[in-house]
Amino acid sequence: MHKPIVITLGDPAGIGPEIIAKAFRDAPEATRGCFVAGDLGSMRRAARIIAGDDVPMPVAQIASVDEALELPPRCIPLLQVVPPVEEPVVIGQVSAAAGLIAGQCVMWAAQAALAGQVSAMVTAPLHKEALHAAGLPYSSFPGHTELLQAQAAAFLGKSVAEVPVRMMLANDEMRTVLVSIHVSLREALDAVTLDNVLQTLLITDQSLRALLGRPPIIAVAGLNPHAGEGGLFGREELDVIAPAIAAARQRGVDARGPIAPDTVFMRSRNTAQRRGEFDVVVAMYHDQGLIPVKYLGVDKGVNVTLGLPLLRTSPDHGTAFDIAGTGRADAASLIEAIRMARALRVA
Amino acid sequence: MHKPIVITLGDPAGIGPEIIAKAFRDAPEATRGCFVAGDLGSMRRAARIIAGDDVPMPVAQIASVDEALELPPRCIPLLQVVPPVEEPVVIGQVSAAAGLIAGQCVMWAAQAALAGQVSAMVTAPLHKEALHAAGLPYSSFPGHTELLQAQAAAFLGKSVAEVPVRMMLANDEMRTVLVSIHVSLREALDAVTLDNVLQTLLITDQSLRALLGRPPIIAVAGLNPHAGEGGLFGREELDVIAPAIAAARQRGVDARGPIAPDTVFMRSRNTAQRRGEFDVVVAMYHDQGLIPVKYLGVDKGVNVTLGLPLLRTSPDHGTAFDIAGTGRADAASLIEAIRMARALRVA
Repeated sequence: MHKPIVITLGDPAGIGPEIIAKAFRDAPEATRGCFVAGDLGSMRRAARIIAGDDVPMPVAQIASVDEALELPPRCIPLLQVVPPVEEPVVIGQVSAAAGLIAGQCVMWAAQAALAGQVSAMVTAPLHKEALHAAGLPYSSFPGHTELLQAQAAAFLGKSVAEVPVRMMLANDEMRTVLVSIHVSLREALDAVTLDNVLQTLLITDQSLRALLGRPPIIAVAGLNPHAGEGGLFGREELDVIAPAIAAARQRGVDARGPIAPDTVFMRSRNTAQRRGEFDVVVAMYHDQGLIPVKYLGVDKGVNVTLGLPLLRTSPDHGTAFDIAGTGRADAASLIEAIRMARALRVA
Repeated sequence: MHKPIVITLGDPAGIGPEIIAKAFRDAPEATRGCFVAGDLGSMRRAARIIAGDDVPMPVAQIASVDEALELPPRCIPLLQVVPPVEEPVVIGQVSAAAGLIAGQCVMWAAQAALAGQVSAMVTAPLHKEALHAAGLPYSSFPGHTELLQAQAAAFLGKSVAEVPVRMMLANDEMRTVLVSIHVSLREALDAVTLDNVLQTLLITDQSLRALLGRPPIIAVAGLNPHAGEGGLFGREELDVIAPAIAAARQRGVDARGPIAPDTVFMRSRNTAQRRGEFDVVVAMYHDQGLIPVKYLGVDKGVNVTLGLPLLRTSPDHGTAFDIAGTGRADAASLIEAIRMARALRVA
């Protein structure tokens, strides 16, 4: 029997609570054994919003994690992990109060995941500005990933640098793992080092083995146009990426490349007509991997944080303040994130 | 009545002649009024290759450009613009002889286009190494674009720097124009200057007006993840791209952005379900634009060279020496390039 999966509330001024409510309503199989780490009033409001004129789904407050496994379907189990919100946050507005709630929920879920109380965590979107406004410690984290990395490092008694994290994005057609994420492109170029690329390959290999049940075929994108065309348009392929691939192969990793960035993603596509050539593409910077993953639409993209001693997935979109409160937000990506968490969890 | 469109032979050792023959065979409407600038023997060989056991399409040698308009359909009009090739080049092999033929055909077509004898030129692929082996002046040009730029500059009595060129790529779903092309990513970052971005916007606006018959809506991609997120991940958006957009808007260009690179291409997709938000995306570097253009497959991509006093389109692939001579090469991209030339020509 798996432990429950925790879903964090996200910023209560954004679409997080609504898409969580929709996921419980529309995907009962996927959400079985899941519960929300959040605030009762905020979740009840979301259930009312998506119900319109119908009777809202019940939100059932649970007193412990394991109660999530005992509840009947068609209700939303909620564990109150923040002080009950007296005055509801204004939907669609950045606020320190909302950022604090979002941050506290993630912090609680991280501790629960590290302690083995839950088998995975799925995070609804938070708003970076609101998190920043929430003050320390939350303001020191640009986003979920850094917060989780810091918690994991503290838990393991290591420095943050000793807990390398990589982001994987997956949709129906492809998966990609990024060497770097939220830094300028100039800094991303500097992050293309032998150590970083090799580490990415090793983390990718280890994580995909768990997902696929076999060693993955890893395509490695080049950094420059045409993968440098033999050094004509940049030397990183020759000096950094090829040696990292060779080192990974020596450790039994089936890494291939470097391959021209403008064709490697197309070649990895899995479609009804054609099986992709690779299981995953290691991308050298954020947009190299994100542009193709998002090209077909962001509805069903999923983020997975690799390298941590906990399993975390999340939808591939933000808080969408512009449509929050309308009940129009699409829960497809969150539902896929929950499915991915189910597929990847081991405990 | 439009002037004829010239199609250059390409490297005769590659798939160029074969896909030209297929285009005349399979797309009679698109190729009406087109002719080949090339070599009679090389085109006849290609017609035989694609015919297999059937009767090959006739290749009709014409004596002047305007004769192309008078020929009946289902034959290939050819103007002999190089000394007749006595000994056929070996298919699938790089050679100086083949490179010289390819280069001479392009040079002839460029002059014809600059002189207004033809309304557009469509270039079949040449092989960069073969062109290099052909000796001066051809060896001084990395590819078609640079050769055409030099010819245009000489024609206009300007320096090459005064004839800025941009590459547009188009397929069924989207168009993108690149600020820079065949340089390392590090050099591409340095090329993101106010002058270069503004120039790209002005060239894009002017060219798309001709194509669409109205001012285009131009999306401008950011350079950094999330378009820099307000300066957090790089300042090029604030310091360079936004000012370039403002300057272009002052000149009446409907440029919008900078927009996050990982969503701008998705938002510009034209599909049966949904009209794209923009007519074209200006991409800050080669792979930013090429990855999404190629993601759905390279079969029908078209290159258009913008900024020159002539119209040139080309298929989005190379000489494919590995399958040249087999008759298996796909003419879809060349046919699209011919269609694009028809749509864009004004003279």
